[in-house]
Amino acid sequence: MESFLIQYGIFVAIALGILAVAVAVILALKVRAADTGTDLMREIAAAIEEGAKAYLSRQIKTISAIAVVLFVLILISKGIAVGWDSGGATAFGFVIGASCSLLAGFIGMRVAVLANVRTTQAATIGAQPALRMAFNGGAVTGLLVVGLALTAVGGFYLCADAFFAQADHKKALDALVGLALGASLISVFARLGGGIYTKAADVGADLVGKIEQNLDEDDPRNPATIADNVGDNVGDCAGMAADVFETFAVSLIGSVLVAALSYADQPQYLIFPFLLCGLAVIASVIGIIFINVGTLAPSKALLVGVALSAIIAGLLFLPLSMVMFPTEWVSIYVPTLVGLAMTFITVMITNYYTATEFAPVRKIAKASETGHATNIIAGLAVGLHATLLPVFFIGLSILISYYCHELYGVAIAVVSMLSLSGIIISLDAFGPITDNAGGLAVMSKLPKEIRKITDELDAIGNTMKAVTKGYAIASAGLAALVLFRSYVGELQAHRLILHPDAVPTTFGLDEPIILIGLFIGGVLPFLFVAYTMDAVGKAAGAVVREVRRQLLAKPGILLGTDKPEYGTCVDIVTKAALQEMIFPALLPVLAVLLVAGFLGAKALGAVLVGTIVTGLFVGISLTSSGGAWDNAKKFIEEGNYGGKGSVAHAAAVTGDTVGDPYKDTSGPAINPMIKVVNIVAILIIPLFF
Amino acid sequence: MESFLIQYGIFVAIALGILAVAVAVILALKVRAADTGTDLMREIAAAIEEGAKAYLSRQIKTISAIAVVLFVLILISKGIAVGWDSGGATAFGFVIGASCSLLAGFIGMRVAVLANVRTTQAATIGAQPALRMAFNGGAVTGLLVVGLALTAVGGFYLCADAFFAQADHKKALDALVGLALGASLISVFARLGGGIYTKAADVGADLVGKIEQNLDEDDPRNPATIADNVGDNVGDCAGMAADVFETFAVSLIGSVLVAALSYADQPQYLIFPFLLCGLAVIASVIGIIFINVGTLAPSKALLVGVALSAIIAGLLFLPLSMVMFPTEWVSIYVPTLVGLAMTFITVMITNYYTATEFAPVRKIAKASETGHATNIIAGLAVGLHATLLPVFFIGLSILISYYCHELYGVAIAVVSMLSLSGIIISLDAFGPITDNAGGLAVMSKLPKEIRKITDELDAIGNTMKAVTKGYAIASAGLAALVLFRSYVGELQAHRLILHPDAVPTTFGLDEPIILIGLFIGGVLPFLFVAYTMDAVGKAAGAVVREVRRQLLAKPGILLGTDKPEYGTCVDIVTKAALQEMIFPALLPVLAVLLVAGFLGAKALGAVLVGTIVTGLFVGISLTSSGGAWDNAKKFIEEGNYGGKGSVAHAAAVTGDTVGDPYKDTSGPAINPMIKVVNIVAILIIPLFF
Repeated sequence: MESFLIQYGIFVAIALGILAVAVAVILALKVRAADTGTDLMREIAAAIEEGAKAYLSRQIKTISAIAVVLFVLILISKGIAVGWDSGGATAFGFVIGASCSLLAGFIGMRVAVLANVRTTQAATIGAQPALRMAFNGGAVTGLLVVGLALTAVGGFYLCADAFFAQADHKKALDALVGLALGASLISVFARLGGGIYTKAADVGADLVGKIEQNLDEDDPRNPATIADNVGDNVGDCAGMAADVFETFAVSLIGSVLVAALSYADQPQYLIFPFLLCGLAVIASVIGIIFINVGTLAPSKALLVGVALSAIIAGLLFLPLSMVMFPTEWVSIYVPTLVGLAMTFITVMITNYYTATEFAPVRKIAKASETGHATNIIAGLAVGLHATLLPVFFIGLSILISYYCHELYGVAIAVVSMLSLSGIIISLDAFGPITDNAGGLAVMSKLPKEIRKITDELDAIGNTMKAVTKGYAIASAGLAALVLFRSYVGELQAHRLILHPDAVPTTFGLDEPIILIGLFIGGVLPFLFVAYTMDAVGKAAGAVVREVRRQLLAKPGILLGTDKPEYGTCVDIVTKAALQEMIFPALLPVLAVLLVAGFLGAKALGAVLVGTIVTGLFVGISLTSSGGAWDNAKKFIEEGNYGGKGSVAHAAAVTGDTVGDPYKDTSGPAINPMIKVVNIVAILIIPLFF
Repeated sequence: MESFLIQYGIFVAIALGILAVAVAVILALKVRAADTGTDLMREIAAAIEEGAKAYLSRQIKTISAIAVVLFVLILISKGIAVGWDSGGATAFGFVIGASCSLLAGFIGMRVAVLANVRTTQAATIGAQPALRMAFNGGAVTGLLVVGLALTAVGGFYLCADAFFAQADHKKALDALVGLALGASLISVFARLGGGIYTKAADVGADLVGKIEQNLDEDDPRNPATIADNVGDNVGDCAGMAADVFETFAVSLIGSVLVAALSYADQPQYLIFPFLLCGLAVIASVIGIIFINVGTLAPSKALLVGVALSAIIAGLLFLPLSMVMFPTEWVSIYVPTLVGLAMTFITVMITNYYTATEFAPVRKIAKASETGHATNIIAGLAVGLHATLLPVFFIGLSILISYYCHELYGVAIAVVSMLSLSGIIISLDAFGPITDNAGGLAVMSKLPKEIRKITDELDAIGNTMKAVTKGYAIASAGLAALVLFRSYVGELQAHRLILHPDAVPTTFGLDEPIILIGLFIGGVLPFLFVAYTMDAVGKAAGAVVREVRRQLLAKPGILLGTDKPEYGTCVDIVTKAALQEMIFPALLPVLAVLLVAGFLGAKALGAVLVGTIVTGLFVGISLTSSGGAWDNAKKFIEEGNYGGKGSVAHAAAVTGDTVGDPYKDTSGPAINPMIKVVNIVAILIIPLFF
């Protein structure tokens, strides 16, 4: 059994990846077969779909242009520095990673626009069917993305390994790093482009619609309404799918690098992470089935489903560990449990800070009674508080898993944590689908009860969205050591080629250049957030001007006698988002190149760590604050503290608007941004040092 | 000359410290001799003075109780671990540091309440006399604090050195660390207590007064008005003075430790920093005289005065370096210039981000047109942007000064940067004095033109306050390496006593325990801000309830027929501030003890660095955002974007209120908090490791 798995383990993993795709296709067909409601619903859904497709195809074009430039740069620089075979393979890996990341985003969007109108229709029957429809839409994305990642990484590794043969194993690994870079860089673009789009449309629509004209959310008289709904699909669905693809692929590749650096002659170390991910597919599918057949209340059903998946995964990992590592299975199995526990713990922590039933959100809601400023202060404080527990558990996880099996233990904990991405993304995609479903209900003039059902699901969706972002960023914290050590290992391997007696580079905190590197790395997330928030502000400003122009040119729009031109808003926000995403997305790449060129390898190593240290806290606090603000508003809208129209509600709307770029643009983009910094650093070693 | 300075250098420095005190006394007499205006002005000023004295005496009592406990703990633990002579001296140093820090705060408050009413009166003559009166009030504090610090550190060092004689020089240094701890810990309390007081009163007064009842700032019908004005004195003046005393004393002590660790047998290294501070007193005095006789516009006069002081200090440092280090003076002189340049650069950077004439504040003002949320987003983004340039220059300064003279070069750059504190604090105290003066003008029913003059000066004061906070926190960033290396040096010295062949502890970024330490250290500033913002929220809530109660019980207050009870508001906010300050102030101490106990010396070292890395950015972004919001409001009140009463103004008030705890409570307290973490770590080495 052991030798079979060592021989064919990656094939087995790829087969399980294909299983994930197959289940996703079945679910997708089930979603597609569902009722799409009235003609008006179909018409509006078609408009959203059209806008989302139009945006995504232009985003793909823009990103592809940048990717082509990078492809050539990688090919030439690596080709000259290392050799044309390696340069070609790395550049090819980059293309695979980039394409899959784009594909993941495209799938996420396609499924979401299928599911939204069907969820609205399902809500006419009840909360349970609506929950299932939205969740299944999310599950399709989740399973497809995981299946895609497992198949792509496994398949590409097998090809590269066969191409370079055993002697040049290092070049095969380099090619994998190329794949990781493609995945990460594209997912920063997708996260940012989609994030800027969705929040510019949302904030722009709110500023003129809700605040100036006193329109409700999703009022069809608001010319930015369709753009707002398109945003949910291209930002929260497409951007998120690309992000999770990246996180999953990079953590898997990271574990492969660690295994190759530390246990070059023991292939089971390299194959184990693939099988872990494969088995987790089975666990995720069972969890998804449970949520589909269960009868629990929505907010519980989702958490219980995740818990069930985690338990099943834990049970499946035991025999795998015992078979592949007969003598030392305990030290391998414990880290897998640590990873699963971290999944559940991060979900529970973020749930506490962002769900309407707990103290933090209620505190923000209460603070809204005394106005805008106290709402903001309370929300900011909640986000800051939310950083403590994740840090504690990340530290504990690193300690335990390192104690078990050193760096490989940590790498396994990361892979195990991310192996459940399939079901976790289902939770994330669930939110924007219900949000869209609610919008469709209002625009299609369905009875108010429908909107009430989708609103309740939306509040759960807000929490789940925050939860999965906390999960992604926490996994980056857990992976910090793996990423940094991969850099150190690659650096040393490279130096040994140049000077056979090169001593390992040290990274002592007492060296000034290390401190400077930590400072530079530390400032990157702050700057990144500053630029991305500005980008949302600028793009939202463009939307505001267009909406004001339309309302002025055609006064009939507000009276309902004239139809607004949704298309121009979609067009403007598309252009603005694509334009504004480029600089912040390239900022981490630029920073790495500058540090490498001017300060050298030591400082660059410290930059990697500095970025993770501040990025972890900034990411957690932004996504938690944002989720909590949104749900504090929802809590007030349920009739607390005066309900809709009260002073508290006006303050809560302000908090929600501030939280929008926090939770949907800047915060979630920090995770792929950290990865880009780390992977670019690994990739440029032969060029600079 | 060289041997004279080596023999009597510290005496010379103490003499120059006494000179600072003498000039301060002359200025104070000049301030006191000025006209105090009408009877009504005197009456209100007396009420503010009474409230400030009452708060400060209760704060001193509370802090003294905590200090006594710590004194006993230090005495016993250090006595048992190292010896009773060392324990006694360290505990005695703690008392000296704590007392001087309290005294500095007390002086800051006394001078401010002298100067505020006289500034109001001076404003009836014109802007120039008002500027000078407020500035001189600040200058008294600045010179007294610097003189006190120089005399206390120098005098205590001479005494301890004489007591322990040359053989046990290390114990004399330990006693100095005790002094540093006393200064730092008390200044965290003073910063927090005063910061919570001032912002709870300010926010509380605004929430009911401005927002619910539509009263103007400082309307005497608002029962919290006096408390608000008391807050300026106990927070911005007393808290700031304690903070600067701490920063100055700790950087001087840090350089002494570095000199003792690296150049034990060359006393000129140890004496040089004292003389640097002494000569800077002369430069500061000349700058202060210039501002008093100059005729430049207020905003320019202050910056030119600082530049003049820096240039004179640079000229004075040259002969000193040449005399004391005849062969290597260049490598000593350049770091002093780096420090002076850093002073000027940090001042200019923060000035750019927070002054009304530059783009960032105008951007926030413009964003206010579209409402509360966009104002907040723009303000948050400005604070985040403001982190980039300081990091760049801090990194550059460390590189240059380390290249010149290794760690000692960095220590000298820090001392040189802080040597101009005398004139820099004058700028800081200037703000709250003019703020109070404006309040007095309104409450004393003086003509509106007076308030216009004080408002203009107040806008400059806001920028200057942000500037000095940026300066303090940037100095902490520059000092990071010195503080960390002091810890490492002390740790190794201690280990060598226990095991004569102990190898130095390493702090490599590739060790998991180091990464965990960085994470734990990194989360501390975030948590600290979370708790302090909550504290302001809670205390402000108590004020709001009291004001509402009074307005309900006596409806005549709003009609002007009944007098509000100012005293009860002062009393409530006093109690609330003292109660709320304790936990956040002890949080860093607690964290250090927990890490030392559970994770050990390596992790603790990483905690120190992690705290500085995130603390630097959090501190800069909070103080910059806060200052920028405040001035964006002032800019709108000058008549831009609709002026007072417009939608933009309402949004700007929200931003200002959010910025209040940012810039006056949480942000500035991060600097002493970082120091506490570092000094406690150094002090507990013999107890834990």
